[in-house]
Amino acid sequence: MNTPASADATPYVHGYSAHESRRLADQADTLAALLHSGTVYPVGSKVLEVGCGVGAQTVHLVSASPGARFTAVDVSPDSLAQACSRVTSHAPEAQISWVQADLFELPFPDAEFDHVFVCFVLEHLSAPRQALTALRRVLRPGGTLTVIEGDHASAFFHPASAYAHAAIDCQIQLQSAAGGNARIGRALHPLLTSAGYEDVIVRPRTVYADRSRPALVNGFTRNTFIAMIESIREPALSAGLMTPPDWDRGLADLHRTATDDGTFHYTFFKGVAVNPA
Amino acid sequence: MNTPASADATPYVHGYSAHESRRLADQADTLAALLHSGTVYPVGSKVLEVGCGVGAQTVHLVSASPGARFTAVDVSPDSLAQACSRVTSHAPEAQISWVQADLFELPFPDAEFDHVFVCFVLEHLSAPRQALTALRRVLRPGGTLTVIEGDHASAFFHPASAYAHAAIDCQIQLQSAAGGNARIGRALHPLLTSAGYEDVIVRPRTVYADRSRPALVNGFTRNTFIAMIESIREPALSAGLMTPPDWDRGLADLHRTATDDGTFHYTFFKGVAVNPA
Repeated sequence: MNTPASADATPYVHGYSAHESRRLADQADTLAALLHSGTVYPVGSKVLEVGCGVGAQTVHLVSASPGARFTAVDVSPDSLAQACSRVTSHAPEAQISWVQADLFELPFPDAEFDHVFVCFVLEHLSAPRQALTALRRVLRPGGTLTVIEGDHASAFFHPASAYAHAAIDCQIQLQSAAGGNARIGRALHPLLTSAGYEDVIVRPRTVYADRSRPALVNGFTRNTFIAMIESIREPALSAGLMTPPDWDRGLADLHRTATDDGTFHYTFFKGVAVNPA
Repeated sequence: MNTPASADATPYVHGYSAHESRRLADQADTLAALLHSGTVYPVGSKVLEVGCGVGAQTVHLVSASPGARFTAVDVSPDSLAQACSRVTSHAPEAQISWVQADLFELPFPDAEFDHVFVCFVLEHLSAPRQALTALRRVLRPGGTLTVIEGDHASAFFHPASAYAHAAIDCQIQLQSAAGGNARIGRALHPLLTSAGYEDVIVRPRTVYADRSRPALVNGFTRNTFIAMIESIREPALSAGLMTPPDWDRGLADLHRTATDDGTFHYTFFKGVAVNPA
């Protein structure tokens, strides 16, 4: 759900608008505790974030490990500028360098980093395994890679609705047409293993929202997930993936899942793996 | 995934064979920690389990609360006999009474129990809300109801397969034709609320299996979930829900998710609610 770090994903399915920037920041705040818990790097360790985008996750990453030295990379200069501004205002003490680069041509020596962090990036790449393998060059032997990805086909909800699932499937199809994979979360374990990592541990990180959790209903179901689907109305209809009435019914059904009688369930996956010595 | 406590579900979609009894016991052992954690009843409290079936969950229920006094109800005398035998051999110290009854005609005084426990029962009922409301009569004001249900449409896996999903959908359709709802897990919160309970808290209890968790791959993906789907081959094909070649492909694809390159994700839901004073 973030900005790609490589030109290998063209074009970025979510776009680069100010509205999209705000959506990504809302999403990151709501989900920070869920996604970032367990990720703390030692004082003095060198950590590379690849595909930092507008810095939505970077803020939480650096806040959790105040003594670590970060390098954040993105392929988009505009995104990097926004990320720098966001981190400077939210975590002014952070030790962080900003580097504009493609993840397949990282301008760093071999084994430069102790740890690598990648969040919502692989889903946009046409060659995620090769990307993971490429990252091993700049990660020291024994260093860890942490990967977080969503899985849009993991979404289910009450009331169930085939129209709502069809609208979500538009996002999956558009992302696929752009070279990405919106269902990559479920594939993280085999992906990390086939890229040559060891001690691969992947766990689901689940968002479940019902009326007893109004902040999640609003922050995730409505303002993150449904907002993401709503943002692709134009390309989905232009591509003829759904008719306008079916689309509108799907979105109305999605909004029903955020009412008092609704529930919404979505699964992120977080993986940690070691670069073999 | 268990025996119904009421004649309102006819016929029981999973059948009553010895093979099915073993499947239910395997399932319960593998999942016990996941499903039962957090459920501990005080010494001396009176707890009713409705729809105990062959006792697959009862064994874990009574083991977690050795000082509580249990009453286990099922509509099937044969299931009750098996449950009694299983609990007697696995937890001989348990204080437990066995009662054959329909959950809509429970032979107990009002407010007889401090707590009620219901696991894999509502999914088989055509009137789950009314069942939950009926249980309030025998539950004292301020007493708790604990409900655990699965959601078969929550299953997703790698590699993804439309044939595998179609096979799972056969189970959902057969259960629906028998008056049940195999997607009831996601609806637990509104269901408990509309049945008049208060302080309703529902949380997902997730099974995620990949090669790093061989016991779950075997105990859940293969011997619980895939075994359940395989058991409905005959009724699914007889009803014309799938062609034999498509069914076989779906099952082969499900088995691929239990290989080294596969992953499998399934969501149970556990709810706790209070009977208003």
